[in-house]
Amino acid sequence: MQADTFSLASGFAATATACGLKPNGALDMALIATDAPCSAAGLFTTNRIKAAPVIYDQDVLAANAGAIRAVVVNAGNANACTGPQGDANCRAMAAMTAERLECRADQVLVLSTGVIGRQLDMTKVAQGVASLTGPTAHRGAGAAARAIMTTDTRPKVAARTTSVAGKPITIAGMCKGAGMIHPNMATMLAIVTTDAQASPATLDRALRYAANRSFNRVSVDGDTSTNDTLLLLASGASGVRVSDTPEADDCSFDQFTVLLTEVCIDLAKQIARDGEGATRLVEIVVSGAQDEQQAHQVANAIARSPLVKTAIHGGDPNWGRIVCAAGYSGAAIAPDRLALWFGPADSRVQLVANGLPLDADLAAASALLRQDPVFITLDLGLGSAHTTVWTCDFSKEYVEINAHYTT
Amino acid sequence: MQADTFSLASGFAATATACGLKPNGALDMALIATDAPCSAAGLFTTNRIKAAPVIYDQDVLAANAGAIRAVVVNAGNANACTGPQGDANCRAMAAMTAERLECRADQVLVLSTGVIGRQLDMTKVAQGVASLTGPTAHRGAGAAARAIMTTDTRPKVAARTTSVAGKPITIAGMCKGAGMIHPNMATMLAIVTTDAQASPATLDRALRYAANRSFNRVSVDGDTSTNDTLLLLASGASGVRVSDTPEADDCSFDQFTVLLTEVCIDLAKQIARDGEGATRLVEIVVSGAQDEQQAHQVANAIARSPLVKTAIHGGDPNWGRIVCAAGYSGAAIAPDRLALWFGPADSRVQLVANGLPLDADLAAASALLRQDPVFITLDLGLGSAHTTVWTCDFSKEYVEINAHYTT
Repeated sequence: MQADTFSLASGFAATATACGLKPNGALDMALIATDAPCSAAGLFTTNRIKAAPVIYDQDVLAANAGAIRAVVVNAGNANACTGPQGDANCRAMAAMTAERLECRADQVLVLSTGVIGRQLDMTKVAQGVASLTGPTAHRGAGAAARAIMTTDTRPKVAARTTSVAGKPITIAGMCKGAGMIHPNMATMLAIVTTDAQASPATLDRALRYAANRSFNRVSVDGDTSTNDTLLLLASGASGVRVSDTPEADDCSFDQFTVLLTEVCIDLAKQIARDGEGATRLVEIVVSGAQDEQQAHQVANAIARSPLVKTAIHGGDPNWGRIVCAAGYSGAAIAPDRLALWFGPADSRVQLVANGLPLDADLAAASALLRQDPVFITLDLGLGSAHTTVWTCDFSKEYVEINAHYTT
Repeated sequence: MQADTFSLASGFAATATACGLKPNGALDMALIATDAPCSAAGLFTTNRIKAAPVIYDQDVLAANAGAIRAVVVNAGNANACTGPQGDANCRAMAAMTAERLECRADQVLVLSTGVIGRQLDMTKVAQGVASLTGPTAHRGAGAAARAIMTTDTRPKVAARTTSVAGKPITIAGMCKGAGMIHPNMATMLAIVTTDAQASPATLDRALRYAANRSFNRVSVDGDTSTNDTLLLLASGASGVRVSDTPEADDCSFDQFTVLLTEVCIDLAKQIARDGEGATRLVEIVVSGAQDEQQAHQVANAIARSPLVKTAIHGGDPNWGRIVCAAGYSGAAIAPDRLALWFGPADSRVQLVANGLPLDADLAAASALLRQDPVFITLDLGLGSAHTTVWTCDFSKEYVEINAHYTT
């Protein structure tokens, strides 16, 4: 979907501005605000080094998840490894925003992304917050999706609408992330909004389910960042309630969660496709595993193997590297039961059966690695569990982007 | 040390030949033979997909570690994922060699390295074995070290001599490996010889100690191969016995193991420095850990982070990526106790103290990342355990090499 025509769910308004945190003058702050307090849930990085806004947001949600009024975001500076000064700057950013919106600071969530280990320029942040809430702000969720980008080459947005007893509900989200991407919770910021009505506990449960099937299945480079944050905000503006025991006009928890998962998978795949230096999205299906955990181990080992990803980039049907990655994944593997295919389900080419190479058409196999998306299916032949993960190919541009990021 | 002037320990003779397994006509088979049966020990890949020669060698050593006569090696084909035919080809390679050397097949160890999933061309192998044992063979350990190379840019050899009660003993080894390198046991073949006299059990114990401080501390790309093998062969030709309870003329186990560890560290560092596309060796010291296991977790996370390695390549003092990798390593981390330095011990520059950036000279820090080797020291401030690992920088050439390996 195009960012230009993208809207958040009703009850939310977005603005963006350029305050100078990005040296090139691009949009670098965004604000998502609600008219009324809304419910929220969040998932955060598993990194032991947590950026100031991650710690701050966890506190806000613990105290106040039923009455959130805004999310303020800056790009260009991660506010990570910044110590007490960083914590104070994060709180100040929330307080400035709250003052403008006439709410309490503990109703404002803060997200930061960018370089680690530098203090935020609070003069610029103050100008940014003023601009975001003033007449000169760039309006609209598309501008906000652009403002949160770092090395992303394009804004990432997704929306789905469904009908509950004749009333529409919408889930609409944006995210950023292109490097330092790995489960759990990629260097990634994502803000998903809905006009459904739900308690923080219900949102939290739905969000965990959706994240485990979307953002936690994406790997770009195996690095898990200090700032990863996924937020879900519910305004209730549709008048439709999400319930575990739905009455006539309610949305069932399952219906809501399926829709949320669709939005999150859409966003997660956009992150993988826009991996730093990537030219193609790669979808890896591992089937025939003893259990889902083992399917994940195998799929993740393949998804993060630089040897697999460079081979895909070159269109080199070097399937031995895929089998090798499965072998060192730690999962149970019976070498003589492996089967491997390249290509989409309806026209796939089998390269390996019973662990042995088939006399496959390697030119056709190479062509399938040059399509976008690339599909790789590995069956372990041991059980019925399966999983899907997404990654990207690995090009010289990844090195180019990352060899000179701060300099 | 130069391969041209390199010799194995006394009691061993090496030859090399080109039989056509490498399409460019370079040396691609090597033979290390002994006059008399010798003691041996081996360590092998932890990958669940094990190449035919790995399984074969494990059987040979289980049955016959006290009477090994030769190691025959081919490059250009890994004989991995080749099923029963691959097993038969491996046994045939051993049998051909044994026939030439007038020993039993189960006294011959076999090593293979190269592309996965293709059957060995046994006509070429037979020609190779004949040539290795005939008058036209290239003689000398330097030629053998060249023959076992794949994407290596240079042969890798190391030797140390010490004196025991006035008698010299030597440990001399060669190895190959440049990609698919990660603990445990890198895509790497290493053959270490000594003229000391030791039982297989003593060799095994010494080899495990040495490998854990050398080859198991090297990472190039996080991929663990199907073929990794480290062999230690002892001819006894020096007349000096290695003993746990040394008498007058014996070498103590500790003295032998220290010497062996030195040789293995020398070889392992050569592998890291010659990582595919690498321009510099990187030595990472993690100190102040609660225990050695946690020190390893942190050091390995840093060593395999593409973001850290690309930053080093670009001379970008982006230390946040190092701290970030420590954070997601899984080890205990107290963010406000971290200290970080770049550069060798006698002239290092501190960038982080108590988890916060210092006002360091970033130009000087960048210069330290452009030296070879690069030294990175991270102190966790939690205890007294420490470790050292080796890796390399990550350049565009890695992608270039690996995008078109089989095609």
